Amino acid sequence: MDAAYPAPKPGPGEALIRVTLAGVCATDLEIAKGYMGFKGVPGHEFVGVIEECADERLFRKRVVGEINIGCGRCEYCSHKVENHCPSRKVLGILGKDGAFAQYLTLPFRNLHPLPESITDEAAVFVEPLAAAYEILEQVRVNDETRVCVLGDGRLGLLVAQVMASTDCSLLVIGRHEEKLSLLKARNIPCRTSPDGLGKQFDLVVDCTGSGDGLSTALDLVRPQGTVILKTTGAERNGADLNRLVIDEVTLLGSRCGPFQPALQALEENRIDVRPLVSKVFRMDDGLEAIEYASRKGVLKVLIRME
Amino acid sequence: MDAAYPAPKPGPGEALIRVTLAGVCATDLEIAKGYMGFKGVPGHEFVGVIEECADERLFRKRVVGEINIGCGRCEYCSHKVENHCPSRKVLGILGKDGAFAQYLTLPFRNLHPLPESITDEAAVFVEPLAAAYEILEQVRVNDETRVCVLGDGRLGLLVAQVMASTDCSLLVIGRHEEKLSLLKARNIPCRTSPDGLGKQFDLVVDCTGSGDGLSTALDLVRPQGTVILKTTGAERNGADLNRLVIDEVTLLGSRCGPFQPALQALEENRIDVRPLVSKVFRMDDGLEAIEYASRKGVLKVLIRME
Repeated sequence: MDAAYPAPKPGPGEALIRVTLAGVCATDLEIAKGYMGFKGVPGHEFVGVIEECADERLFRKRVVGEINIGCGRCEYCSHKVENHCPSRKVLGILGKDGAFAQYLTLPFRNLHPLPESITDEAAVFVEPLAAAYEILEQVRVNDETRVCVLGDGRLGLLVAQVMASTDCSLLVIGRHEEKLSLLKARNIPCRTSPDGLGKQFDLVVDCTGSGDGLSTALDLVRPQGTVILKTTGAERNGADLNRLVIDEVTLLGSRCGPFQPALQALEENRIDVRPLVSKVFRMDDGLEAIEYASRKGVLKVLIRME
Repeated sequence: MDAAYPAPKPGPGEALIRVTLAGVCATDLEIAKGYMGFKGVPGHEFVGVIEECADERLFRKRVVGEINIGCGRCEYCSHKVENHCPSRKVLGILGKDGAFAQYLTLPFRNLHPLPESITDEAAVFVEPLAAAYEILEQVRVNDETRVCVLGDGRLGLLVAQVMASTDCSLLVIGRHEEKLSLLKARNIPCRTSPDGLGKQFDLVVDCTGSGDGLSTALDLVRPQGTVILKTTGAERNGADLNRLVIDEVTLLGSRCGPFQPALQALEENRIDVRPLVSKVFRMDDGLEAIEYASRKGVLKVLIRME
């Protein structure tokens, strides 16, 4: 988090981006504790301005960026799933310096120019919001689908809004009345306990980031239903996977997602991310920002880089 | 395992069946150790003859039977998935005396008359073979699907043959050369170690019944691939489910399956179950049969009830 950190040099096909605003994600907190063994500059949620770029049309554009950088040659890259390229780099997570610095580089193809109507404070949510939209790429949801979102943290509140934007029947279970009130204000049904609900949901999305989340999800999902695991980092040793066999449940991991629906939802004001910002720090106070983001009850912490 | 155990009285819609041959399954061994807290007569793999039945056409027929008995009224029963009826009974497993006795009762709708060409010794495999066929109800397999079956036990050898009956590309990984030789004789590629294979399989079926199976499956499944858990009883606490999230893997539990394709495969000699019989015991030696079935290296143990 040092303004003097040397600006990276863009490689072939890459742009140099001056970061204006970055977001702190639970993964950054896990990385700070050693997750992924990553040694570079962390940070993967950002808004920035292109400062150097071979494609003149992109010059000075305000952008957000997809964080997976595939090799471009393998089976996955050639099928447009470079998110799963075995030799991928991931911005601020794996082999690629990230957004908690004044500059970063990313391939042109990873960048999405921002419409003026999306503020920096909203645009910094595009990456986690895209991760929430990944669910709709993985499972079909219609007006008969009973969905339960577990967790009212940063990601849970985004996932809840994405699911509410479909015509499914939705219930969110969190632990914090003040966080759930953000959803209640949008007429999303919420509870603070799963007690007494039984196995009634077709789809349960575990956004708790806690080891108990999977067990609770298995208490709530119907036989032959689906549980989506949306967070890494948690130790989930407590869950009895025999329940998966007996009830023939599908357990589905879900990671990064498509930027386009996230951008469109923000542009059309269908998702409200403003109440999710707990505090904005200056770049010089970056370490404090990370510490603050790890406190209980804190939602999204942003770091202004300019 | 007492011939003097009183014959059960068939309820409405049920038939009384004289058991002629029963098979010992890993679940029976788990039940003997306390799994499911079941207190009645165990045994759910059987062949028998109908001795008492309101439907005259079924009288004296040789039959096998589906083991889940739904309530007939709930959401699951009305959608023909009574295997998942929340108040179901399960023959020899849950609330219903099973096949390790001279007689059992089952609803007519659970019974499948046997063609003459299927011997008792083959027919007793219909239930576990149906469980193997359940996989093909759950996932699509074609000539581009790379499938790995883990485990060369009773269920693994059936699942391997079912997968080999599709046009997928198949590899079986087991630990016992003598068991794998049964598959090699059918030109099914086998190995005794997963080392060096990497994440190359679209579908991995864990039939190991061991706690390590899931971890090995996650070593072998490609990103966005599918792992099927086919056995209960194992403690699977060792597997890091974060890998599921990062690779967006689908983990799918699989239990009982359709009898029809299993019967047809046996009738057409497409699946060979004869080499899977390790030993046949007499009813009076039933306890010895259970003990023998739990020994390492033993495949299917049968108990002749007449």
